[in-house]
Amino acid sequence: MADAYQKLEAKFEELAALSHAMGILGWDEQTMMPEGSGDERNFAQAKLAALAHRMVVDDETGELLERAVEERLDHWQRANLGLMRRARMQASALPSEFVERQHRAGMKAEQMWRKHRPANDWRSFLPYFEQNVALVRQEAELRSAARGIAPYDALLDLYEPGITQTDVDDWFAGLASELPELIMRAEERSRATPAQPPPGPFSIAAQQMLGRRAMEALQFDFDRGRLDVAVHPFCGGAAGDVRITTRYDESDYVESLMGVIHEAGHAQYEQNLPVQWRHQPIGAAVGMAVHESQSLFFEMQIGRSAEFLEFFAPALAAAFPHVDASVWRIENMVPVYQAVRRGLIRVNADEVTYPAHILLRYAIERDLVNGSLAPADVPERWNAEMGKWLGLETTGNDRNGCMQDVHWPSGAFGYFPTYTLGAMIAAQLADSFKREQPAWHDDWRRGDFTGVREWLSGTVWSRGSRLQMKELVAEVTGAPLDPTLYLAHLRARYLG
Amino acid sequence: MADAYQKLEAKFEELAALSHAMGILGWDEQTMMPEGSGDERNFAQAKLAALAHRMVVDDETGELLERAVEERLDHWQRANLGLMRRARMQASALPSEFVERQHRAGMKAEQMWRKHRPANDWRSFLPYFEQNVALVRQEAELRSAARGIAPYDALLDLYEPGITQTDVDDWFAGLASELPELIMRAEERSRATPAQPPPGPFSIAAQQMLGRRAMEALQFDFDRGRLDVAVHPFCGGAAGDVRITTRYDESDYVESLMGVIHEAGHAQYEQNLPVQWRHQPIGAAVGMAVHESQSLFFEMQIGRSAEFLEFFAPALAAAFPHVDASVWRIENMVPVYQAVRRGLIRVNADEVTYPAHILLRYAIERDLVNGSLAPADVPERWNAEMGKWLGLETTGNDRNGCMQDVHWPSGAFGYFPTYTLGAMIAAQLADSFKREQPAWHDDWRRGDFTGVREWLSGTVWSRGSRLQMKELVAEVTGAPLDPTLYLAHLRARYLG
Repeated sequence: MADAYQKLEAKFEELAALSHAMGILGWDEQTMMPEGSGDERNFAQAKLAALAHRMVVDDETGELLERAVEERLDHWQRANLGLMRRARMQASALPSEFVERQHRAGMKAEQMWRKHRPANDWRSFLPYFEQNVALVRQEAELRSAARGIAPYDALLDLYEPGITQTDVDDWFAGLASELPELIMRAEERSRATPAQPPPGPFSIAAQQMLGRRAMEALQFDFDRGRLDVAVHPFCGGAAGDVRITTRYDESDYVESLMGVIHEAGHAQYEQNLPVQWRHQPIGAAVGMAVHESQSLFFEMQIGRSAEFLEFFAPALAAAFPHVDASVWRIENMVPVYQAVRRGLIRVNADEVTYPAHILLRYAIERDLVNGSLAPADVPERWNAEMGKWLGLETTGNDRNGCMQDVHWPSGAFGYFPTYTLGAMIAAQLADSFKREQPAWHDDWRRGDFTGVREWLSGTVWSRGSRLQMKELVAEVTGAPLDPTLYLAHLRARYLG
Repeated sequence: MADAYQKLEAKFEELAALSHAMGILGWDEQTMMPEGSGDERNFAQAKLAALAHRMVVDDETGELLERAVEERLDHWQRANLGLMRRARMQASALPSEFVERQHRAGMKAEQMWRKHRPANDWRSFLPYFEQNVALVRQEAELRSAARGIAPYDALLDLYEPGITQTDVDDWFAGLASELPELIMRAEERSRATPAQPPPGPFSIAAQQMLGRRAMEALQFDFDRGRLDVAVHPFCGGAAGDVRITTRYDESDYVESLMGVIHEAGHAQYEQNLPVQWRHQPIGAAVGMAVHESQSLFFEMQIGRSAEFLEFFAPALAAAFPHVDASVWRIENMVPVYQAVRRGLIRVNADEVTYPAHILLRYAIERDLVNGSLAPADVPERWNAEMGKWLGLETTGNDRNGCMQDVHWPSGAFGYFPTYTLGAMIAAQLADSFKREQPAWHDDWRRGDFTGVREWLSGTVWSRGSRLQMKELVAEVTGAPLDPTLYLAHLRARYLG
């Protein structure tokens, strides 16, 4: 009676325990760990990862997977078994000698990037970058061979299962045709709208309180989660113990507050995955694009909405009594929160210009992996793309051009598209939600987010990995993913 | 060339990584974890423990151990191999069905203890206690059979390798003959010595600063460790990342400060174990009695000495400016720190009365395990022992009598003796140290603890588990463990 399948579930429970440990250790490393303990932590994490890897690829797992296919399983079990097979395929696609070599090269390249970026020294960084690109091309080929899909598709699939370059080309083409003009018009309108940003300083204690206040309003479960400080904000921890971080700047409370709301979106997805499948692959979040759709739903669809601002203004006024009350009027704050300014740096970009930063990175990394672009030619291509999308120039400014992100130095290719796919998915989900719950407008103004949480929980969170992203979007919204609703959202908010 | 041994080292490196994870998870549970995440943490810890257990007892480990015995190894490797064999013997002594049953019974008994102790309800707790005793007798029998040693010896050996009931009977007999009179005289003298305790409140911020100050003076490595708050103070974390905790009470700074110094002793042992053997059994601390000897060396030999008080008084005066300066005079503070008062509660006991609490527990648990005492008769025996050692009465007061500690309810028998053995070892080590480094007196008064740290590091810390406790004491002090020097220390300090 599904004996092999039951044994697999038991094995994946042990993997879930390892994953719990690695998650808490990862959180601890960024928030609590004394600096000198880093080598020891790296040792432990590497050994645990190797142990988990071995458990997935060992002969016993292989035999159980073969036997379980013949067993009588319900739909969720069948889907879970599919994800177990997928995990094994991913884990065994690369020889461990290759993984080790790539890991070392990535560590070295990242280290060289940290050294040469501040000096704007592309030439010195280039050999390490070339090495990374050569290795990721090999990785893509190996994964391609193992999975029977195209090389770059095999990388995309690591971050969001089931999506292909054809999909992304298609979705992004829809964006690309309208984005440059939209950016220009939105920036013009933003510059023409008078807005008075609240003057600092904003005490860190008050910002902490506001972050918790926002998380409470959005019903983050503090009994199974935490908020802490880390240099790079993230959502981490473990299933049933979801921990987010932020950082504080006394001259700007918006970045931290919006960061908290963003991470709270990731966190609520994790906190509300199906409990009965918590220790199985089917109970995990589906992919990075869907994950980002939840954080961007919270940050962009909710957090930067006029309705949320209206609800939250009294809390802001109380937290920062030195600011003149008139500043917190909604007519002033909306243009402050929704300012549009083209810039060179992705992580500082606003909602409208952000996708341009992704479109250019996507085009470059796709061509790098597929071999039609040489690593040495990246700065020139970057400058050309920046001109095309944002009308900006980066020649001789690689530090703020192609050297600005850690992704490629660390060896992550195929990840960038998920940011903008997340924004597209969020917009499409928000469109469905608002049509289904027309009372959202009044609810949000009152600070009542129960309706939207229940809707997201029912449509997305409770499904775990039961559906892949493309199926999920179609199932929930009744239509395939399509940039039209995202563009409509941007136009309504920034040109409306 | 020592191929099987090398494979074993690799396997124990993975076990060290699991142990790292379990250590940090355990620390996190007591300090950071949100309350609602407890079940999930228990799940993860249980799975990781089961995984580690399986790695030790699996056939591959057994075969490697047999092959490695024939290989050419140096002394440390040979000793390390012995500890690997020991670990396997310990791990396979109990059938997993029995471990599971005992674990569940222990959880239940501890839960019932938490419920019935506040109500002073021995009768309701008794059935669970009887169950625990029955199971620990079985455990002792099983371990006895596996190891070829006596049942209670097999339990003692879990906490301090190589010690036997005969040893403990012998060491404790030496104490017992003098302790009751020493206690009576020390208390009389303490009561007759006028002392003015510093009046509170003692702000928590100032106490935190003082704790860190003391740790810095004692050269705790903050680059590889932390100090945090937890309900029950402990030293935890992982190799190379040693974390201690304390708790604060605004009406009493001494308990927290002495607690910090105590845990800092445990921590420095852990921080200074031989780095090159960090991931092997031989690189770990030897046993609980030796561990306690290091914490008590720090707390009792150093922290409560007149020399340390003299060095630390200015820091105390600066931290608590509301206290009249005359209070911090050494003639006043020594009797405050060295007060002797008989009481019912072990964890509140001073240095002189503490061993009495252990002698009585040892006698009772030894007889419980060996079958000469019935669980139902424990309150009566407890009362008799309390009368004999401390002249106190606990009839009808089981809450503050035999129900006061968590050890037996949780199933830990064989642990209690290590507290007083630790104190004995500390006194014997201190005696040798002071004879070898007569400048200690002036060093400590100046706050210079480099000499004592280097001495402990050379004699104890750097040895890891190379020598068992009895060998270690003989090697370092030139004589077997003997209560005489401990009694001499108590007499000199409390009757001098």
